[in-house]
Amino acid sequence: MLSSRSLLFSRNKVLTIDTMNPKVKNVEYAVRGPIVQRAVQIEKELREGVKKPFTEVIKANIGDAHAMGQKPITFFRQVLALCSYPELLNDNMFPEDAKSRARHILQACGGSSMGAYSASQGIDCVRQDVARYIERRDGGVPCDPDNVYLTTGASDGIVTMLKLLVCGEGASKTGVMISIPQYPLYSAALAELGAVQVNYYLNEEKCWSMDLRELERSLAEARKHCNPKALCIINPGNPTGQVQSRQCIEDVIRFAAKERLFLMADEVYQDNVYAEGCQFHSFKKVLFELGPQYSNTVELASFHSTSKCYMGECGFRGGYMEVINMDPEVKAQLTKLVSVRLCPPVPGQALMDLVVNSPQPGEPSYTTFMKERTATLSLLAEKAKLTEEILNTVPGITCNPVQGAMYSFPNISLPQKAIKDAKALGQAPDMFYCMKMLEETGICLVPGSGFGQKDGTYHFRMTILPPTDKLKILLAKVNEFHQKFTQQYS
Amino acid sequence: MLSSRSLLFSRNKVLTIDTMNPKVKNVEYAVRGPIVQRAVQIEKELREGVKKPFTEVIKANIGDAHAMGQKPITFFRQVLALCSYPELLNDNMFPEDAKSRARHILQACGGSSMGAYSASQGIDCVRQDVARYIERRDGGVPCDPDNVYLTTGASDGIVTMLKLLVCGEGASKTGVMISIPQYPLYSAALAELGAVQVNYYLNEEKCWSMDLRELERSLAEARKHCNPKALCIINPGNPTGQVQSRQCIEDVIRFAAKERLFLMADEVYQDNVYAEGCQFHSFKKVLFELGPQYSNTVELASFHSTSKCYMGECGFRGGYMEVINMDPEVKAQLTKLVSVRLCPPVPGQALMDLVVNSPQPGEPSYTTFMKERTATLSLLAEKAKLTEEILNTVPGITCNPVQGAMYSFPNISLPQKAIKDAKALGQAPDMFYCMKMLEETGICLVPGSGFGQKDGTYHFRMTILPPTDKLKILLAKVNEFHQKFTQQYS
Repeated sequence: MLSSRSLLFSRNKVLTIDTMNPKVKNVEYAVRGPIVQRAVQIEKELREGVKKPFTEVIKANIGDAHAMGQKPITFFRQVLALCSYPELLNDNMFPEDAKSRARHILQACGGSSMGAYSASQGIDCVRQDVARYIERRDGGVPCDPDNVYLTTGASDGIVTMLKLLVCGEGASKTGVMISIPQYPLYSAALAELGAVQVNYYLNEEKCWSMDLRELERSLAEARKHCNPKALCIINPGNPTGQVQSRQCIEDVIRFAAKERLFLMADEVYQDNVYAEGCQFHSFKKVLFELGPQYSNTVELASFHSTSKCYMGECGFRGGYMEVINMDPEVKAQLTKLVSVRLCPPVPGQALMDLVVNSPQPGEPSYTTFMKERTATLSLLAEKAKLTEEILNTVPGITCNPVQGAMYSFPNISLPQKAIKDAKALGQAPDMFYCMKMLEETGICLVPGSGFGQKDGTYHFRMTILPPTDKLKILLAKVNEFHQKFTQQYS
Repeated sequence: MLSSRSLLFSRNKVLTIDTMNPKVKNVEYAVRGPIVQRAVQIEKELREGVKKPFTEVIKANIGDAHAMGQKPITFFRQVLALCSYPELLNDNMFPEDAKSRARHILQACGGSSMGAYSASQGIDCVRQDVARYIERRDGGVPCDPDNVYLTTGASDGIVTMLKLLVCGEGASKTGVMISIPQYPLYSAALAELGAVQVNYYLNEEKCWSMDLRELERSLAEARKHCNPKALCIINPGNPTGQVQSRQCIEDVIRFAAKERLFLMADEVYQDNVYAEGCQFHSFKKVLFELGPQYSNTVELASFHSTSKCYMGECGFRGGYMEVINMDPEVKAQLTKLVSVRLCPPVPGQALMDLVVNSPQPGEPSYTTFMKERTATLSLLAEKAKLTEEILNTVPGITCNPVQGAMYSFPNISLPQKAIKDAKALGQAPDMFYCMKMLEETGICLVPGSGFGQKDGTYHFRMTILPPTDKLKILLAKVNEFHQKFTQQYS
């Protein structure tokens, strides 16, 4: 069964680069790609005393709030400690509302322990709390807890939904429309599943908005060679930091209804909205406001997570998805599919519960909770503004407002000579640029090519998460580096 | 692209049972299948006051220790509470060794928080601790932390390895050899990946041992229609509870070497060995004892978990895998693949660290830890013996010794009339039997057909986890039910 070539090169191994799953080989994930690996290596070199033009690596490559110094919400961690070691319920050091939340979660766990498996769809009472949260968020639009699935971070939910959708071969292979620039989980999952990635471009000139004509172009193009079944939207945007307008969301829903596309709304940054005049509109709310013609038909899955917003609890891998108008037979299949992995991590489920069931006015932890939440979100808003302002002062860098999420995705002009040199090395020009920046300044960014961008344009993604003083240093270094780089290659 | 049939039946939905991924439809997972769904329903009916011939459902369908009343290890939960809410490090209620373990874990987390993403392969220091644990377990056989990947439970590791291995179409489609009876994660993952499931039968007459001639038969058969690349072993066995002998493991390794098969050793029950004369031998240790001809060539992945053994912390979804002799290019692909999901849950990683780095003699928590650990394992050994003994008194039930793991998998004789009635209902006869038992006694078992068994034989899987008094009631009820059932259908 093996080709003579792979036999020759297999060095007697069963599993080699030639015999392994080619779909896995096609997977790319820039957020933790070669540039980040080099950054880790440089950190090690610095520890070993190697001299560099800098003393520390500043990682602005990933939305990892706690790693950048953001502190956890006290209330959440108190409840998690209580759930981990319920003997603490007898201790006077914890406020009553933390204790009652812990009891609420523990009574729903098998044997009152986070160590028991939960139902595969997630703990019942957590799904009920999620449903009530969604109803409040969406001004009373009803939410059935049976439509809520707890997940291992949002990534897990997104991959699970794609698994259900993807099938076929040749011209009937499933196509999935994703924005360009995109968050590379999407391209990676589609590569692994062997689906067709159908690109639609966000409009950089109009602050990365979605453009109906571009969606139509992309879909028409795709229909020539595959079967497009789903449309993915990330709002607020990753890596592009925009917040889509209500009008735009309406347009997208009407488009999906007309073209019979399953909508996947990645809304993990729903609390990360900073710009004046911008507001988060959930796809579900807009869908229901468009009336029964839409709310009874358009299929939608929306995703949320404990990793972003004001809590930034990435390590717990908590999340949920809500499915709307899903065919009951398909839902049964979804429930079966998630049962194979037994259950999402229970501490992450507990945390998700706290996010959707946070301290209320009158409860002892309310004031501290609100103070911490507001402080984090204000600081993020301040850093979003700062990032945009400073980057736009750099000749050759143009940066859209960071309306939401945690990233800026500025456009960078690269000299022709740099582009040529990069191509000679077989590197994307912005990878060449970011790699040089890392080696010279210790700043770790992700090149725009890792997210996708219009041909001939170049970008990088930079998180706004570093502490303000460090962010200022980082932006000053980017400024300096960009000018030096431009000069050097002009 | 849609067939006229699916258009007709699609009720205007994009995603229907006809348009969804057919591989997902092929997935089956009996451990949480129809019988468990019915059990949940019955529990609800009982709560609502529906009269039944019993007052509670006893779930012996899943290895979920805490749900069955097993208590968590105090030390582990103290450290997890400290890691969740590090302010507790200033509290005098925690022993020093718990505090030092918490500091050890937290200093390795970004921003000293479990809320930061870890490296995708897992936290460095945890992987180092795992490596030292493996070295101690295997009498000094070296373990490189670079070969250790932390996972979201063992299931995640197993699926990830299968993803790397599976490819091809038609006669060159990857085949994966799994034991029958098997743990249905394997069949489910193979169905989802579209691989060929290659069955080899365990020898029930010889206490579910592996038989070299059966492996040869199975492989020869498979080679006629697919490309068998991997051989999976579960030891101690799930659902069959056997512990493989050293000789058997040697034979399997020699077989894999000769036939060029990648070995996957599911060793999550490595501390669950009860029967006298039985001992756990890791595949890695035996591989290295066979000498360099084997230890330098045979590719092996072995899996462990926080969910079983004496800790039973299923809800945390902690685990690791060690890969041996993996091609470096493939390893790079593996590292890339796991990076897409960012990282395993950090609380689960912390727990894995505690399992491999438990209190040592002289440390303040040692005595309590050992007392708790020993008590749990002794109780399991007692219940294993009890289960085997009582089941073997029932006419028509034959049960192999429960040498290890957490399950008995007795053989049940079913009357011809019951088999006929089941078939008329389109049910597997042992499903028919288990469903009747559930309705009449409230006992929830999993039919043997969910794990696979020799044609014409029937079994069920029953965990030994219920508390001793409840286990005795359960076994008495099984006895009574089986006799009644046999009479009724004779």
